[in-house]
Amino acid sequence: MKEFCGLFGISGHEKAAWLTYLGLYSLQHRGQESAGIAVARDGSIVLKKDMGLVSDVFNPDNLEELGGGMSVGHVRYSTTGSSQLVNAQPFMVRYARGTVAIAHNGNLVNARELRSRLEGFGAIFQTTMDSEVIVHLLAKPTYPDLEHSLIRSLEQVKGAYSLVLLTPDTLVGARDPKGFRPLSLGIYDGAYVLASETCALDLIGADYVRDIEPGEIVFLNGNNMRSVKPFPPARTAYCIFEHIYFARPDSRIFGHNVHQVRKELGRQLAREQPVDAADIVISVPDSGNSAAMGYSEESGILYEMGLVRNHYIGRTFIDPYPEHRDLMVRIKINPIRDVLQGKRVVVVDDSIVRATTSRRRVDTLRAAGVREIHMRISSPPITHSCYYGIDTPTREELIASSKSTGEIARIIGVDSLGYLSLEGLLKAVPAPGGQYCAACFTGHYMTETCEEACKDCFER
Amino acid sequence: MKEFCGLFGISGHEKAAWLTYLGLYSLQHRGQESAGIAVARDGSIVLKKDMGLVSDVFNPDNLEELGGGMSVGHVRYSTTGSSQLVNAQPFMVRYARGTVAIAHNGNLVNARELRSRLEGFGAIFQTTMDSEVIVHLLAKPTYPDLEHSLIRSLEQVKGAYSLVLLTPDTLVGARDPKGFRPLSLGIYDGAYVLASETCALDLIGADYVRDIEPGEIVFLNGNNMRSVKPFPPARTAYCIFEHIYFARPDSRIFGHNVHQVRKELGRQLAREQPVDAADIVISVPDSGNSAAMGYSEESGILYEMGLVRNHYIGRTFIDPYPEHRDLMVRIKINPIRDVLQGKRVVVVDDSIVRATTSRRRVDTLRAAGVREIHMRISSPPITHSCYYGIDTPTREELIASSKSTGEIARIIGVDSLGYLSLEGLLKAVPAPGGQYCAACFTGHYMTETCEEACKDCFER
Amino acid sequence: MKEFCGLFGISGHEKAAWLTYLGLYSLQHRGQESAGIAVARDGSIVLKKDMGLVSDVFNPDNLEELGGGMSVGHVRYSTTGSSQLVNAQPFMVRYARGTVAIAHNGNLVNARELRSRLEGFGAIFQTTMDSEVIVHLLAKPTYPDLEHSLIRSLEQVKGAYSLVLLTPDTLVGARDPKGFRPLSLGIYDGAYVLASETCALDLIGADYVRDIEPGEIVFLNGNNMRSVKPFPPARTAYCIFEHIYFARPDSRIFGHNVHQVRKELGRQLAREQPVDAADIVISVPDSGNSAAMGYSEESGILYEMGLVRNHYIGRTFIDPYPEHRDLMVRIKINPIRDVLQGKRVVVVDDSIVRATTSRRRVDTLRAAGVREIHMRISSPPITHSCYYGIDTPTREELIASSKSTGEIARIIGVDSLGYLSLEGLLKAVPAPGGQYCAACFTGHYMTETCEEACKDCFER
Amino acid sequence: MKEFCGLFGISGHEKAAWLTYLGLYSLQHRGQESAGIAVARDGSIVLKKDMGLVSDVFNPDNLEELGGGMSVGHVRYSTTGSSQLVNAQPFMVRYARGTVAIAHNGNLVNARELRSRLEGFGAIFQTTMDSEVIVHLLAKPTYPDLEHSLIRSLEQVKGAYSLVLLTPDTLVGARDPKGFRPLSLGIYDGAYVLASETCALDLIGADYVRDIEPGEIVFLNGNNMRSVKPFPPARTAYCIFEHIYFARPDSRIFGHNVHQVRKELGRQLAREQPVDAADIVISVPDSGNSAAMGYSEESGILYEMGLVRNHYIGRTFIDPYPEHRDLMVRIKINPIRDVLQGKRVVVVDDSIVRATTSRRRVDTLRAAGVREIHMRISSPPITHSCYYGIDTPTREELIASSKSTGEIARIIGVDSLGYLSLEGLLKAVPAPGGQYCAACFTGHYMTETCEEACKDCFER
Repeated sequence: MKEFCGLFGISGHEKAAWLTYLGLYSLQHRGQESAGIAVARDGSIVLKKDMGLVSDVFNPDNLEELGGGMSVGHVRYSTTGSSQLVNAQPFMVRYARGTVAIAHNGNLVNARELRSRLEGFGAIFQTTMDSEVIVHLLAKPTYPDLEHSLIRSLEQVKGAYSLVLLTPDTLVGARDPKGFRPLSLGIYDGAYVLASETCALDLIGADYVRDIEPGEIVFLNGNNMRSVKPFPPARTAYCIFEHIYFARPDSRIFGHNVHQVRKELGRQLAREQPVDAADIVISVPDSGNSAAMGYSEESGILYEMGLVRNHYIGRTFIDPYPEHRDLMVRIKINPIRDVLQGKRVVVVDDSIVRATTSRRRVDTLRAAGVREIHMRISSPPITHSCYYGIDTPTREELIASSKSTGEIARIIGVDSLGYLSLEGLLKAVPAPGGQYCAACFTGHYMTETCEEACKDCFER
Repeated sequence: MKEFCGLFGISGHEKAAWLTYLGLYSLQHRGQESAGIAVARDGSIVLKKDMGLVSDVFNPDNLEELGGGMSVGHVRYSTTGSSQLVNAQPFMVRYARGTVAIAHNGNLVNARELRSRLEGFGAIFQTTMDSEVIVHLLAKPTYPDLEHSLIRSLEQVKGAYSLVLLTPDTLVGARDPKGFRPLSLGIYDGAYVLASETCALDLIGADYVRDIEPGEIVFLNGNNMRSVKPFPPARTAYCIFEHIYFARPDSRIFGHNVHQVRKELGRQLAREQPVDAADIVISVPDSGNSAAMGYSEESGILYEMGLVRNHYIGRTFIDPYPEHRDLMVRIKINPIRDVLQGKRVVVVDDSIVRATTSRRRVDTLRAAGVREIHMRISSPPITHSCYYGIDTPTREELIASSKSTGEIARIIGVDSLGYLSLEGLLKAVPAPGGQYCAACFTGHYMTETCEEACKDCFER
Repeated sequence: MKEFCGLFGISGHEKAAWLTYLGLYSLQHRGQESAGIAVARDGSIVLKKDMGLVSDVFNPDNLEELGGGMSVGHVRYSTTGSSQLVNAQPFMVRYARGTVAIAHNGNLVNARELRSRLEGFGAIFQTTMDSEVIVHLLAKPTYPDLEHSLIRSLEQVKGAYSLVLLTPDTLVGARDPKGFRPLSLGIYDGAYVLASETCALDLIGADYVRDIEPGEIVFLNGNNMRSVKPFPPARTAYCIFEHIYFARPDSRIFGHNVHQVRKELGRQLAREQPVDAADIVISVPDSGNSAAMGYSEESGILYEMGLVRNHYIGRTFIDPYPEHRDLMVRIKINPIRDVLQGKRVVVVDDSIVRATTSRRRVDTLRAAGVREIHMRISSPPITHSCYYGIDTPTREELIASSKSTGEIARIIGVDSLGYLSLEGLLKAVPAPGGQYCAACFTGHYMTETCEEACKDCFER
Repeated sequence: MKEFCGLFGISGHEKAAWLTYLGLYSLQHRGQESAGIAVARDGSIVLKKDMGLVSDVFNPDNLEELGGGMSVGHVRYSTTGSSQLVNAQPFMVRYARGTVAIAHNGNLVNARELRSRLEGFGAIFQTTMDSEVIVHLLAKPTYPDLEHSLIRSLEQVKGAYSLVLLTPDTLVGARDPKGFRPLSLGIYDGAYVLASETCALDLIGADYVRDIEPGEIVFLNGNNMRSVKPFPPARTAYCIFEHIYFARPDSRIFGHNVHQVRKELGRQLAREQPVDAADIVISVPDSGNSAAMGYSEESGILYEMGLVRNHYIGRTFIDPYPEHRDLMVRIKINPIRDVLQGKRVVVVDDSIVRATTSRRRVDTLRAAGVREIHMRISSPPITHSCYYGIDTPTREELIASSKSTGEIARIIGVDSLGYLSLEGLLKAVPAPGGQYCAACFTGHYMTETCEEACKDCFER
């Protein structure tokens, strides 16, 4: 139940649904499976969510119906298997204290354990989402108000979460004490805005104020904000992969522009992993573009367009020939033979997961007549799974967990392969290296893992 | 009824529908309004078409149902107004001689005149498409076989057309005598393939053979081809805008790779329109990328990523604030403030039509803190409408038809504006300049215009 | 291409679409496959049609959009095979003279021959409907106006038709010279109304004026009517099955109330085919109800409810057990065991076609404990197919074409079986017997048959 | 939240989904708003439900997918307002003990009170249905197994319920101690069958065994049945309206055939409320048919067809003219003028609720030329609302709660009006009168009312 998602919220505006729609639009790269918006107005909350892209789910009619007020929105990543409408967010329930809509980004390592415990007392769950655990904890009648209930609930969950939560009169934003996932705060037309990435603030024309801090909970209504930090201080654990891959190049994440951070990764990569005799540097578009430009600048090798991305693929491309292993690569990325033929090429990509895709891209480049392929990766080898909300495969499927760089180079068929070193990565990113979670490269997890958290509860 | 479209055909394959689907996929940039595939098998033709993207219209079920045989496919450009299913292609009819499915790309200047004449004799039209005129001409019982009927029909039409036509036993490809629109010929697994651009051949793994020549008609069945050139020789009139804007950078058009031609346009532009003191060159993505790279190489000014395109917009983005003029620009393209702030920037774009979009992009760049904007356009000023299938506005709406370059620079708010000269353009493109249609820059049309062709027929 | 349909038209009303919708609603029993409405207003015609019931196709939105003016509507019978949207009516085309929408009820025996002839001259047909032949004849430029074109066109067609036709300024109603199919004329709120049955007039509150006469064409606009009778007088051939089965019991057909005619058939049946010792008379609901009541009255045997019809079946009932032959009978009609057990029962039904349904109903009655079953049919044995628009099976499938009454009684398993005699039928119906078409009972067709009409044209 | 519904269940069959589909088909008259089927197989339960008729929701594909095993099904009545998919049944949840699907018919008078109490302890409800209260009670971890939990849960609920409940290995049927709603038991092909009415047993060919008794719970699996009666004996309270109106005439309810009971009501009505000089008896179809036949037999006045029901109305008829008050009556029921004109008519209907419909029908009859209208009602005046699952309006809207029979006769415009007396009703029904709930005629409720049950809980 790994999830990678985008969040948006606004603390009161007559065009709240429209603005949230725009915000989700710009966060679409963080999740294409489902989209939802909840708007609080006149003491109640209305919700619209469905499977599909933001542009599939919303239209002028349902946005007008959702209307104005306070709002939260969510886009969800498309992972295989659990793609069901019931798991779309925001998740809304009515309970004794009233109505609440919640949307979250991240993964709780002890969700299964908490759920077993709650069910043992008679709780009935509707979904398989982490968020529902938080709501059931909130529904316990122990504490007098939302603030106390929320703090006590979040004290019990472990792992990564950024979340936006809406009641009929309050918008809440929260980030776990280690700050795995980003959440930024902006201001627009007298209202506070919460967004996973600043590109959502840019689109609606909001001004960036600051990031919600790790362990901070903000209670917002119109231009009023109350911030609490109820949890003990902790070493932060910013997800370093937001810099490397997830975020949009025009966003600021953890306070720094993504494109420029990636370019610096590319420069560092050129220093660590130079190629002596190459004619051109090309990127695997679009995720490798920034690092490839940095590599080109640092190395002085010409940046060329060797691969073209087809932007009309949509979510629903059908593979007619599962037996032709490179069709799914070619449908997305086509080489320009006239650029590549006979050339010695540095190919810059952001990461290698299973290596199957890389291998097929190499085949495609070879078929286009490339003479030498020097693959350069702007991150270290991924050796461990993520428990904090990134959809990585199991450790066994991660090629770098069992193969050396030389073996991987042979498997994918390149003339040379070079990864950015962990030290180089931690030097190139803007914050001090010790503030990041780099567990996918090191196996040094920042909390207990799901398996550890759940060792006492029965497996389903 | 201007149309810009993509064509595909295959002369016999057990996976004909699937291959045509793939071909249309890679031609999706030539038309997002509707998609259709017709397959000929066992003496009859089956057709599936609908509004929407290729991936919306087709799925494994209907592709399996369409099955194998000979096939033609079509994607249609989204123009406002005439978006109706009845106008989707291929257009199929049953008439005395049997069944025929036709798909075309281009615009006939005398379609209205021919239609009036046919209706006067009792013909009943189902659509408002040019293609139907050709089919009614074909249905006349004067000639003994398809070949003669088709030649006589095409002798009567004037203007631009590339077309693919399917009967139960023949796939036909044809290109008008002046060769306005491209049509390439490939071979795959023992079958001939027709496609508007070579990227469609690449995707299915077909080998490029040659272009269908201007005025050539090919009759294909399996690996048999018969070519006829029944029309008197004519000066060719390749659409120069295919080089500048329409085609995919990885395609060959009129025999030459699009990216490389555009890069040469950018180099020529740098020679003609240098900028003395600039910090970076950026492109308006994605159409300006190749020319911007050429400009950077020729000028030595660093190529940077200043604007980021959002690839998830989809066809159905709703503009919530028509009053905020720059939202529709920002939703597509967002600036990277950290790259742009305080910089002197060369912005390379492919063309200026009405100037409204350019003006809004300039506003966006200014808001991101750019110090100087030097816009460079990799084509001459567009001063005349197109009658041959490109969806240009009326002459009055073309800003360069009435304003000087200096006036346009003021209107869009740049520090300097420079167009590529017509001479520079004709020098930079690969074929001799006299073989192109450049009427949009010169007003020198290659045939009579629609108004001239129809001066005797009543307006609707 | 047999069709049994319902027609409606109104010569001008601000609520034309709504009134036509209501009219079609009350004619729904004449066709459940598709429904359509065309409205003429401001010089043009708008059309909405689709597969499905009237209530599926129309809603307040599309009815408001259709709006007011002159209108025609159509419901089409569900026959297997040719169920396609393209064959839904009204059928609308734009041709040289303008726009025309046509809807018809009946079957032309020479449609195929005429179509072959028209296609030989280059005509392109869109559908497989008879109506399109009439439109192509109309489109011929020979005659100066609609009236002359229509008369000349109808002179060429042979067979059965009632039709309504709409141009932007005229509503036309026409009935073939023999008057096979009904068409009644009413008046409502200053406008003329055309309808297949008077129940449509009743529903909207229109007053019945008279029937359109055989061979009459009326041209209507608002409260203006011009009637022409351009064809030579002919012996009429009213479809006697409209009395027996098709029409609604509350309609007047050919000037007489259907329920009362059917009751008289039941009385005549009781006189001709008495049952000596029976406990109750039951009907096969609902088509046998009226005749059963007549039989009961004439015979003095108690009318009871022995079979109950399930009115929620809908069009889409799925037969889960094709191997259980009586399930499809039971899903529609369930016996009341407590009424039937141990009884001697007269079962009145309107007709027997293939006998399979009758046999299953008899099984159902036996399983409910009926002691004796005396089946009485309120029409003679059906021995011949219909060429005039009724969806009868081929002659071979008509059980009475090859079996005697005694054999049929054994096949369906009744203790006795009695049909109404042809003489009795012709005596019981209200008009003189010689004015009817009773070809399905006699084989004495009123025109040449389809086979005779088409002996010179090639079969498809 | 009044609901009138139909239930079906089968204790194990390889065609369980198909059989349940058939059963629901025959119960469609008990609910047209939504339909659902849950099938238990291989340790889990699969569920399909949606808004719409049984034939809309199910098709061969989803029935095959549901497959075989143990099954429960439900159809729900269409009441305005609460028509939402979330309220469709069966209602399925996963909780600590596993999965359970429940479907019920009836109304709990203390549902709101129980819900408030459960929410106070932190429970989160998903729907507004009574059934969810039962499930939350079941989820409490107090008791060791399903049987004990279910008994303790049902001990806490008050009011009317028949229910079917499915776990992965047991089908449960239960009826409240007073037996308000019916639930019959049959056997088919080695499996037990539960159904609201016996017509569902008839359709699938099951044999009727007996009724589930008031206060009985049966646990079924294949051909095993265990019956418990854990509640103290109570005076029964069979809903007398099942006899009068709801059930299908071919069903047995509370052990007796509905048609015959209604006919006896009609006979009793003829004895109590004769009409001296009348020409014909007609019924308001179809609900008045049986009683009208009884009235005719007892009185000797001829039974005629004066009103015809249009069976194609569907659920979605749109009223185009809300201002024409009788259109909605005429669209459903059309008079046969030729039968009615000049006649003195006895009109038999089952009940009068608000009188608006009756008044409009009388208008329709008057417009058809009826000379005298003597309305006879086969039940007493309805003076009180129902708390046990029948969708009656508030007391104020019940015309007989404030008007005398004479006043009602004047309001609806009849020449005479006669109701069946309460004594006559209780004499005519098959069980002793004291075993029925006749609260709608007397106000003598069989439990506390909803208001009384909830006097301590806050209104929403």
